[in-house]
This record gives sequence, C-alpha cells and structure tokens, in this order.
Amino acid sequence: MIAVPRAVSWSGDHLRLLDQTRLPGAEVYIECRDVDAVFEAIRCLAVRGAPAIGVAAAWGLLLDLEALPENASQLTGLLERRGEYLVSARPTAVNLAWSVERMLNLARGSDVSSGAGLLEILREEAQAIESEDIAACEAIADAGLPLVTQHPNLLTHCNAGSLAVSYLGTALAPIYLAHSKGVPVHVFVDETRPLLQGARLTAFELQKAGVPMTLIADSMAAHVMSQGKVDAVIVGADRVAANGDVANKIGTHGLAILCRHFGLPFYVACPTSTIDLATGSGSEIPIEERNADELTSGAPAGTPAFNPAFDVTPATLVSAIITERGVIEPPFDISLANL
Amino acid sequence: MIAVPRAVSWSGDHLRLLDQTRLPGAEVYIECRDVDAVFEAIRCLAVRGAPAIGVAAAWGLLLDLEALPENASQLTGLLERRGEYLVSARPTAVNLAWSVERMLNLARGSDVSSGAGLLEILREEAQAIESEDIAACEAIADAGLPLVTQHPNLLTHCNAGSLAVSYLGTALAPIYLAHSKGVPVHVFVDETRPLLQGARLTAFELQKAGVPMTLIADSMAAHVMSQGKVDAVIVGADRVAANGDVANKIGTHGLAILCRHFGLPFYVACPTSTIDLATGSGSEIPIEERNADELTSGAPAGTPAFNPAFDVTPATLVSAIITERGVIEPPFDISLANL
Repeated sequence: MIAVPRAVSWSGDHLRLLDQTRLPGAEVYIECRDVDAVFEAIRCLAVRGAPAIGVAAAWGLLLDLEALPENASQLTGLLERRGEYLVSARPTAVNLAWSVERMLNLARGSDVSSGAGLLEILREEAQAIESEDIAACEAIADAGLPLVTQHPNLLTHCNAGSLAVSYLGTALAPIYLAHSKGVPVHVFVDETRPLLQGARLTAFELQKAGVPMTLIADSMAAHVMSQGKVDAVIVGADRVAANGDVANKIGTHGLAILCRHFGLPFYVACPTSTIDLATGSGSEIPIEERNADELTSGAPAGTPAFNPAFDVTPATLVSAIITERGVIEPPFDISLANL
Repeated sequence: MIAVPRAVSWSGDHLRLLDQTRLPGAEVYIECRDVDAVFEAIRCLAVRGAPAIGVAAAWGLLLDLEALPENASQLTGLLERRGEYLVSARPTAVNLAWSVERMLNLARGSDVSSGAGLLEILREEAQAIESEDIAACEAIADAGLPLVTQHPNLLTHCNAGSLAVSYLGTALAPIYLAHSKGVPVHVFVDETRPLLQGARLTAFELQKAGVPMTLIADSMAAHVMSQGKVDAVIVGADRVAANGDVANKIGTHGLAILCRHFGLPFYVACPTSTIDLATGSGSEIPIEERNADELTSGAPAGTPAFNPAFDVTPATLVSAIITERGVIEPPFDISLANL
C-alpha cells in the first residue's frame, strides 16, 4: 500500500484513530477499546470526513463485547442502543447513520441464533465497510491517474485526502498514485479559510507522503495560474446534484471560474455515493452558514460577517467527475442518470 | 468633512497619528512632538500607506524647532540631516523620500535669509502636501460617485481607505461620499490574507464611519457574486503601468476574473501619481515575495509556502480607473498617455 496517514483502521482488537484535533502539531493515535471512546472521538472531531466516520462507527458498535450476550436478539438489542448513542455524536453526519443502519439491518435480518455467531457476521460486515471504502479510494486513484499524469501540476482546496477516508482520499487519491509511480507531481495547497483545512490537514498528509507541495493563501490561485504553474485543479465534493452541479468547500466555485478563464481543466473526485440523483440541481442544496466568529477574530468587535461553509459550482464549469466507477464527462445530467 | 478615522493630521503644534499597530483592538492616537517620534512611528508601521507616510514626514521635519537656527542655511542643513534620518525609517517607501525631497528642495532654493522666515515657508509647504492629499481623496470621491451610486453593492479587497492617506482614501473615497449623500451602499470586505488588512483596517474604518459592511473570507467572493449580492468591485492600486495593467494586493487579479465571469464592473481607484508611464506593462513590475511564515503558522513545520504580496491584473479586465483627474476608461494605453 502507498504510505499515507491512516485516519481510521481496525487493528485486530481495537480501532486506531488519528487524532485530527492534534494535527498538524502532533501525530497522536487514539486506541479505541470501547464504544464511549469512539463516541467521544466522533463528537470532538478527532475523526472527521464522512467515510472515515462511517468506518469508525461500524467498528465502534462491536468493541468491548467480552460480556457477549448469549443469543443473537439480545446482542441486536444491545447494538441498537449503541447505534442510537453513536449517531447522537453527530446527528447530521449522513455516513454515520448509514453505516450504523447497515450493521443493524444485517443483525435484524440474520437467522443466526447465537450471540457469538452474529458477532462473527457483524465483524465481517464492518471489515466490508472498511474494505469497500479502501477499494473506492483505490478505484478513484486508478480512474484519475491518466488525468493527473497528463496534468501533474495541480492545485487543490480544503482536504479531500486520506484523513477523510480509510485510505488514499478522493481528490488526493490519483495524486498519491501518480507520485508512487514516479510522475513528477506538484500540488499547490490552498490554505482554505476560515478553518485552514488545507494548511492543517492537506499539507500534513502530503508532507507525510513526500508529495511535493506549496502552501498558498486562497487568494493566490489566480496569480499562480497566470504564471503557468498550474495544469489543473482537483477537489472533492460534499454533494453532487443530478445535473452535475457540485457543492463543496467555500472557495471551490471561484477556482472553477479561474480554471475556465485560464483554460485549465477543473476536476471533481468523489465516490458515486456522493452523487445525489434525488437533488435535481445545485439550487436545491442548502448551504450551511457557520458562526461568524470563525472570521472575525482579527476584526473590530461587532464586525458583521457572512460565513457560508460551502458553495455550489455549476456543472458547466466542471471538466469531469472522477469516481470509483470511472471518469464521468459532460453532459452530466445524462451520464449521471446511467450510474 | 465626512467623519472617517484620520491616519495623519497636523494639530497646530504637533502631528497626530492613529497608531495602526493597535488596530482594531484599540484606537490610540500618537502625539508626535519631535522627529524621533515620527521616525519611530514610520519605522514600526504605526503610520502606513504611501501618502500618509509622506504627509507625516513633511511635518516631522519641522517639529521641535524651539532652538530655531538664526539663518536659513543653518536650518536647511539641520533639515537635511533630519530628512536623511526619516528616510532611513523605511528606505523603500517612495512617498517618504519624495516628500522629504520636496521640502528640502524648497529650502535649498529659497532666497529667504532668516531661519524663522524659511520655517514659515516650509510650514506652508507641509500644509500644501497634506492639503493636496486631502484634495486628491475628495476629487477621487467626486469622480467615482456616479459609479458607486449606480453600483451601491460593492466588494473591496485589502485597505485603500482613510487609513492609508490623509482623508477619505482611494477605493473607499467614493463609497464614503455616496454614504454621506444617503446612497444605500453596502460593502463586502475581503479579509485579505495573509495579513488581514481587510478585517483589521477596512472593517475598522467602515465601522467607524457607519458604512454598512459584511466581512467575508477572500474565497467567498464568487459565492456572494453568484447570489447577486455584488454590483461592482472597487480596489486601490500600488502601481498602474502605461498600458493600464494594475499591480495591487495579492487576490486582486482573481477578483477581476470573477467580475468578468459575472458581468460586473471592476474599478481601480488611485491618484494619478500611482500611474507610472515609465512602466510599459505589468510584466515589468517586480512582485515582492514576503516571508513564508506569514502563511505557515497553522501548517506542519517545514511546509513550503509561496507568499507573493501583489499580483498584476491585466488592463483587459479593468472597467475604469478612477483618479483625481476623472474616470479613465479603456483603451488605457491611449488615455493614460494623455494624462
């Protein structure tokens, strides 16, 4: 495997989480041995990123079962209470609820009668959730490799790397793969105000993996593009609508416009689970507005601020969407419907 | 006069400087009563902005002259030593050297013989330098008023306001004037990473003047434009080339591209002294690269960063240049040559 920091991984008898609240100052791993430790790690954002949270929750259900209920229905009842508890750590995290439900539905539908038998099945399911996430990262890496090889000087925004998933990430996955194959990649890392996920997280994981990179302020993208230092922009996505509109970290829309101006491709990398065919277009996606104090610490007291967490990039500005099932090209409204 | 914070003003017997190193936490004025106080204020950036430094230096030469030399040539010699000293506070600040030279040239060329007589002439000259700067601000405000009235929802970047000059500023001057006339202006203030001049300085002075504003991160400009919340962008300039290319705070070029994409006007406001006809195009303007540590405080140790202080916006993206002599419209290479 390619050596990238692993946000979440099962270690045989415990769940190992990279404590992202300590990054980038310290690389500390939390060994979770009971469901309370996983709850707390999810709640305090030690583990973040939708897929990573889903994997953590699946394993979290199964920790500390030395006093294993004798029959399967008792175990299912215990896991339902644990599931409710874990989901309450971040109630709006879709992958958290999805992962817990997948585990519980399997338990409820199983015809195994012993607790030990059901636990064995559930351990396989948690491993499957983790393995599928790893496989999705690898497939996105494979799908994006030709694009990154052709455009080795990249610019990315926020963190769509290994810290949000079980392995290589989404936007960073083809970059890691290309780097491992000797392609001379270089990544401009937008610091990504206001929470600096680029400076804190993307810079951390690219540095750990030895990928050449340069940190810039978000406002410097046009300048480095005008100097011919960028071949393409590649970002992740929080949600993709059926017409190909992309909701992602605030600042993404502006980058897509700069790409159009400079004639550069603008790539979005995400698993197909991020594509929501029930959402017709980006205008239906609600934009989370976060607390103004994330912006106002340097400003005079009482300064009003607007702090949207996401923006919506119109599909017309997206060159391609890189998924685990391959690269989807415009027109997206037709190609996404065939997924 | 319109009530804006005054960065520099002569108060009859001393020079009054707003200590910008204390902003926005505290509004503290420094009363300079000798040349050392002015030197220190310039050196430590308590006063900043090319025109403001020039005014401060002109008055600074003339402070603490109770022991006035009896004859004019002795006074000129003293002022030459003071001038050299003041210029050494920020050797690359063009307006500082220009202002000191203007005062000294007048002293050297004067046929007045008494120290008291020469001092009187020099006080008038310092007042003229201050008054000319105030008049330039007012003329830029007048010239830009119709544009701001037509486009009252504005977005600005960095600080091109009263804190950089003696009175209303450049980009902010027509906004202050429009606000004073009851035009319902609103200003989105880019925080302006990495040094946050927007959040610290522009937010401070707009708040003091009661101009409605909203602070945003630099990366949010495309989003607020896409929502129809911006009618025009207006910024200052550090240097304008003969063909109309504009060097200004990093991030300006990207804003101009966003304006083109959304069909919004992109205005530059500056005194004609900022237009350098000896510079043919923006490619001849050296871009100051500042220390990487302005960007890397949140990043892992050893993260490489690129920190250009300015970028160059091509003239093709500039809708108009607002000067104290009126509004200059494309094609700039012809109209600037007629200045």
